[in-house]
Amino acid sequence: MQSMSSAWLLPEHIADVLPAQARRIEELRRQWLDLARSYGFELVIPPMLEHLESLLSGTGHELDLKTFKLVDQLSGRTLGLRPDATPQVARIDAHLLNREGVTRLCYCGPVLHTRPAGLHATREPLQLGIEIFGHAGLEADLEVLELTVEGLASSGVGNLTLDLGHARMVRSVLGGLMLDVQALTDLVAALTAKDGSAVRAMTRGCTAESRDALLVLLDLYGGDEVLIQARQRLPARGPIAQALDDLAWLAGHVRQACPGVRIGFDLSDMSGYAYYSGVRFAAYGAGSPNPLARGGRYDEVGAVFGRNRPAVGASLDLKGLSGVVAAARPRPAIRAPWGEDAALRAAIRRLRAVGETVVCILPGHESETQEFECDRELRAVDGQWVLCAL
Amino acid sequence: MQSMSSAWLLPEHIADVLPAQARRIEELRRQWLDLARSYGFELVIPPMLEHLESLLSGTGHELDLKTFKLVDQLSGRTLGLRPDATPQVARIDAHLLNREGVTRLCYCGPVLHTRPAGLHATREPLQLGIEIFGHAGLEADLEVLELTVEGLASSGVGNLTLDLGHARMVRSVLGGLMLDVQALTDLVAALTAKDGSAVRAMTRGCTAESRDALLVLLDLYGGDEVLIQARQRLPARGPIAQALDDLAWLAGHVRQACPGVRIGFDLSDMSGYAYYSGVRFAAYGAGSPNPLARGGRYDEVGAVFGRNRPAVGASLDLKGLSGVVAAARPRPAIRAPWGEDAALRAAIRRLRAVGETVVCILPGHESETQEFECDRELRAVDGQWVLCAL
Repeated sequence: MQSMSSAWLLPEHIADVLPAQARRIEELRRQWLDLARSYGFELVIPPMLEHLESLLSGTGHELDLKTFKLVDQLSGRTLGLRPDATPQVARIDAHLLNREGVTRLCYCGPVLHTRPAGLHATREPLQLGIEIFGHAGLEADLEVLELTVEGLASSGVGNLTLDLGHARMVRSVLGGLMLDVQALTDLVAALTAKDGSAVRAMTRGCTAESRDALLVLLDLYGGDEVLIQARQRLPARGPIAQALDDLAWLAGHVRQACPGVRIGFDLSDMSGYAYYSGVRFAAYGAGSPNPLARGGRYDEVGAVFGRNRPAVGASLDLKGLSGVVAAARPRPAIRAPWGEDAALRAAIRRLRAVGETVVCILPGHESETQEFECDRELRAVDGQWVLCAL
Repeated sequence: MQSMSSAWLLPEHIADVLPAQARRIEELRRQWLDLARSYGFELVIPPMLEHLESLLSGTGHELDLKTFKLVDQLSGRTLGLRPDATPQVARIDAHLLNREGVTRLCYCGPVLHTRPAGLHATREPLQLGIEIFGHAGLEADLEVLELTVEGLASSGVGNLTLDLGHARMVRSVLGGLMLDVQALTDLVAALTAKDGSAVRAMTRGCTAESRDALLVLLDLYGGDEVLIQARQRLPARGPIAQALDDLAWLAGHVRQACPGVRIGFDLSDMSGYAYYSGVRFAAYGAGSPNPLARGGRYDEVGAVFGRNRPAVGASLDLKGLSGVVAAARPRPAIRAPWGEDAALRAAIRRLRAVGETVVCILPGHESETQEFECDRELRAVDGQWVLCAL
């Protein structure tokens, strides 16, 4: 037990959010949920805790390592604190709603990580996400991309860049290799890090065709020229050609819908979670070297819940986003004295009802500075309570 | 490991919140946070996880039992998942803001309990709370009560009843007894349950004066007559007389401010958490036998963080509240076909920007029923996209 004087020290990579940032996060939260609703996404609230095997079904090793585990004293079973809400929402679609057609769902809540994603990363992101289930066509991918770009733009993110990739691209090249799970994991990490010498070393025993394709993939990041080079330099196998067509279609349509956004391609990127199965993207903006939002297609996640529906979605950390956008200036507040006068109390109630912030100065605290910037004051003038400028 | 077909079964007393209830919760969340803001409460977001000793400092045994514990792999120390955010907000006031004057803070987020509070209780309430720090006078208690009543009334709760009690009342009677901690805990539980025979049995060895006072307390619940009886039947010691004066003052002022609310007194009630130190209250309404909101004064909680500020607050579970109030009917949505036509896309964007929900029917899904009630449709008429009633 530490001494009481340090009882307030928080765990590493865990922090309180204080008023100025909390207000900005709340604004962003409402903006994004309202935007999602305007597209027809319905809000759901999955729980923080689930049985571990349900939480991690089909989501891969990385999420497992990120998951805090504990024992449920009611059942003796192991529970996990969700490190990511996406698989939960797939579960809700598969089992609880059990709809036949297209379902659009969104969510917003904390997730927890045993280890931070980076040197300055929080272990408690506030994850907001949108998911479309039940449509395998690219129109759903496009809708997710459009909503993400529109959301970031209206959050005030400048210099928006969208990096597009495709999980089938890397997988179909890797499919030609005979590697065990660990070797495959290491290779994917090396590809994502664009570590050419590591890729070369790890694929020494592979066929020349597969090895060459992997090394070519490493170079394939940049603008539109990437798609042209890919068609020339990669084996024109079915899945690869299809993936390139998909990327070209999406890039064209996103450019039309969101003229301001820069689009790049990164064909070897496999960062983020392992559940992506098709087009995948990361959105970058001014003020952050890390992606502000990520998403993609993950058609396989629902399978473990007995219903393998097509799925595509995106998510972002509102805490991270709040750090790179400017807050709307809060509307200045009104000071009011504390008093039992019914007319004073009625005046305060009226002002609050129309959205004003009225701070009552409690008796004895008249000379304290207020944290809210007050630009007006309720004053008694000739027996009437009137609003006076300060 | 259970079979995959039951991978979606959630732990007991843990549930997903589906769209209809989630929408209601989100409406309530915004209403309450906006109301708190109109009184000058600033939003903060304390973390889900803290070092156990920080989370549980000065909060008593009951909260300890309710707390999920796990080990931080970064530090090897024990962490707790917050079962209640109130002590966290006291920590933020004491250490992070470190202001001299009155500070008003509010928060909203999930809390987790190892055991449910009752047969149908969730182990993951969505706790919303308001706290005033730095003012020891009853004006702060009154402000918390007013905001709570106003919030419940505007959430649509009918038949509002406020039960007032005072932690010093029971404590000052108990102070005359020589009992160990376990006996004291059991006695408090018996008092709260109004179990007269248990109280009689447990106090067999106590002085007649203390015992009589406890048995008198048990009877003291009901309307205004309770305060009169209390003055007649309880020893007129300083703290007891003061507590009765406080309750009378508050009841009078709440009646003035909120004419619709019924006020009762329960002088032996010590339910809820152990940290209350002064006036305490529970708010009841139509549709629920359990309190919808609870609150009170807890001047001692900040002490462990080195700064013992006066504090009074209230909190409620938005999930519970959402179960007893009617949802606002959502505004019907608009169907739109999917298409690449720039005029169609512009029409959709305009409608969404003014707050409409426009659901794009993805290709191949034209005959599916929509979850959103759609009462209008975008149709091409004479080369123009127009809104037609359905």
